[in-house]
Amino acid sequence: MDKQLNEYIKANIPIYKEQLKSLIEIPSISQDKNHHSDLHKVLQKAESILKEIGFTSEIIETKGNPVLLAKLELNKNKPWITIYNHMDVQPANEPQWETNPFEAIEKDNKIYGRGSTDDKGPALTIIHAINFLKQNKLDIPNIQIIYETEEEIGSKNFKEFLDKANLENPESILISDTIFEGNTPAITYKLRGLVRAIVKLKTHEKDLHSGVYGGIAMNPFNILSQALGNCLDKEGKIKIPGFYDDVIKPGMDEIQELAKDEEEMQYEGDLYTKDKMKIINAIHNPTFEIHEYYGGQSNENQGIKTAIPYEAYAKISMRIVPDQNPKNVIKKLEHFLKETHEGIEIIFNEGNEGTVTKLNNKFMKKAQEACEYGFGKKALFVATGGTIGAIPKLQTKFKVPIVLIAQSLISDGYHAPNEHFRIEQAEMGIKTMVKYLNKI
Amino acid sequence: MDKQLNEYIKANIPIYKEQLKSLIEIPSISQDKNHHSDLHKVLQKAESILKEIGFTSEIIETKGNPVLLAKLELNKNKPWITIYNHMDVQPANEPQWETNPFEAIEKDNKIYGRGSTDDKGPALTIIHAINFLKQNKLDIPNIQIIYETEEEIGSKNFKEFLDKANLENPESILISDTIFEGNTPAITYKLRGLVRAIVKLKTHEKDLHSGVYGGIAMNPFNILSQALGNCLDKEGKIKIPGFYDDVIKPGMDEIQELAKDEEEMQYEGDLYTKDKMKIINAIHNPTFEIHEYYGGQSNENQGIKTAIPYEAYAKISMRIVPDQNPKNVIKKLEHFLKETHEGIEIIFNEGNEGTVTKLNNKFMKKAQEACEYGFGKKALFVATGGTIGAIPKLQTKFKVPIVLIAQSLISDGYHAPNEHFRIEQAEMGIKTMVKYLNKI
Repeated sequence: MDKQLNEYIKANIPIYKEQLKSLIEIPSISQDKNHHSDLHKVLQKAESILKEIGFTSEIIETKGNPVLLAKLELNKNKPWITIYNHMDVQPANEPQWETNPFEAIEKDNKIYGRGSTDDKGPALTIIHAINFLKQNKLDIPNIQIIYETEEEIGSKNFKEFLDKANLENPESILISDTIFEGNTPAITYKLRGLVRAIVKLKTHEKDLHSGVYGGIAMNPFNILSQALGNCLDKEGKIKIPGFYDDVIKPGMDEIQELAKDEEEMQYEGDLYTKDKMKIINAIHNPTFEIHEYYGGQSNENQGIKTAIPYEAYAKISMRIVPDQNPKNVIKKLEHFLKETHEGIEIIFNEGNEGTVTKLNNKFMKKAQEACEYGFGKKALFVATGGTIGAIPKLQTKFKVPIVLIAQSLISDGYHAPNEHFRIEQAEMGIKTMVKYLNKI
Repeated sequence: MDKQLNEYIKANIPIYKEQLKSLIEIPSISQDKNHHSDLHKVLQKAESILKEIGFTSEIIETKGNPVLLAKLELNKNKPWITIYNHMDVQPANEPQWETNPFEAIEKDNKIYGRGSTDDKGPALTIIHAINFLKQNKLDIPNIQIIYETEEEIGSKNFKEFLDKANLENPESILISDTIFEGNTPAITYKLRGLVRAIVKLKTHEKDLHSGVYGGIAMNPFNILSQALGNCLDKEGKIKIPGFYDDVIKPGMDEIQELAKDEEEMQYEGDLYTKDKMKIINAIHNPTFEIHEYYGGQSNENQGIKTAIPYEAYAKISMRIVPDQNPKNVIKKLEHFLKETHEGIEIIFNEGNEGTVTKLNNKFMKKAQEACEYGFGKKALFVATGGTIGAIPKLQTKFKVPIVLIAQSLISDGYHAPNEHFRIEQAEMGIKTMVKYLNKI
């Protein structure tokens, strides 16, 4: 197989790159309503790639965004595998972009563009792995592909898709939307959940003159700053009472496993700690982030309007660990914020639980072998700080092992400017996926 | 004089309204660079009104915005008075506007529009008072009018104007850019200064994935919220060490004078206190307001982008009392913010001192008589919480009494949506100004 596979990769990488570019050039930003039609376009493009190698497919609408379901049944006697990826992307308006994020550019053996590494590039390696195995009539399970377009906004309507779609029951699920630990391949067994919320405080009916009302009228930006600023202590620990009640400390064996790779973790900028064990521990703990405030009447490009704003909003998120419940977390937050001002409300929230998958099954073992074959290095089983909202829903629906094999590097820039995917990682990703799909 | 004056007002109010509308319809927003040409337009319009009644005038350019200087010398043997108003306005993008803020609308005997009460309407009553006195050959000093277009952004370049313009030395200065106390006419003897600043914290080179870096990487919005939220206590008092060092308590006689009118003060919404003495005291104290944050990559209309922003900004202002020094105040704030994070910087600041004018001169007495004549009610001498940046500069330049006679009501909506000026106030304002200019 090795020689054939190397030849396949050599011959097909140019095709892979063209396909990836054509996917990147559709700005499938799920959190921006103006890009809703691009979500259909990106699925249609993916569909055309899948149909070329023999898949049947349909695009299924939900109350939210559409989902592509594609199937390739090569042998009725074989089991099914479900492969999940997402075709939506984060916005890309960071000022540090050096290229147009939606015009894929190849430079230094990397493809630059929003979505290149999260998650279009990794999704495509799996398609090529399937294509290779099929062309060469090698062993492969029947394949059910699900491409979602709501992953970056929490997969709110994914359950609706799972309920209504005509799905096969798979023996396992493969997901490739995670990140290497430093330079080491990673198989994720633990993922945090994510709770997102909009917090609001309205203290007046209209803006007030700060010269007349200042010092007497409560300014919602001052008070919201107090309430939200109070959520973290100086070490970055969350001060909301009871917040850590359901947080289970990782076992010593987990920490040992992770500690092996500590040297390779790349952190930059202002950090709460440089202690390596604390850094490793951080992904076993919840987070609290303020992403933005809005509601004042001035804007970045205007001067300073000195009125007291009548209302203020903040967008926040919390990564939560597997035993925390999103609704409980929101309740605790709300209760805590109301201690600063009774009028503080959470006007929007949605959340996914964290997930843990078991290590003791053949799929995990095969994944490790596949990584060693494809990436040339033993994979670590890791806990990952990120969130894939679809996973708890897939877990509930199918009750089968979920295997997360990373192809992206931390330096690729998930959710960051100058996101890229290394062509070398794509080549090794194809090899890894060929081995995994062939062996299970 | 009374009969003539009533007839003049009756005949001229329609002209007054047309003139006011034409001034309102020029959106002379000084804090928005896109409206720079409107500042010239509004001064040209004012100039044409003044020329009709015999003024000579010129528009003087500064490094910032233009200033109109107009003179009417009727008798070489008489002293000069300087009249100061401003023709620039606040922005008007508050959602609660029921009319187009730059299309003056008359409703219920009020003229609605941005600038109607601050400060175009009051400026025009003085022009009509001069016109009446001139037409009827009644006693009037020589008049030097100064219309500025930087008042709403701090009058930064007003000193340059005072230094370069060909100015007469006045015996006193009249300003009508203040507000009644409840329903009682007010003559302001004390004004707060205003310091405005932009605070910045950058903790990383680019946005970071909150699933990977959360809990380890410092989020500049979290930290700026802590630092700024910490500036006020639960009672709204400023916690910055030493901030009150130069704040002199008002004398009991001042408080007694003010307390007379306490019943009429109109405060609404969430307040730090309902204690009337505390409310009265508030304008003798400094304030600290957060007006807006910016720097996150999402916006109001998008979803919640869960990245950790790499930098955060806040726009703040502080009203300061006459003995506080703007530069000292900024230094104390900066020092305090750096206790939370050394990287917090104040990247922009500008400020004006507060001012006090003496009560024991004939102009204050004549102003009180004029208010009683025009508004039919005895005026209070009041401290005002607002700021007029030009006043300390006028004080330094001319060293003569500055008399601030209010024409606006607190309900008119200074800096607020649905700003308006009551035609009744305009009529009484003309009467008051006629009496004042005639008697001094």
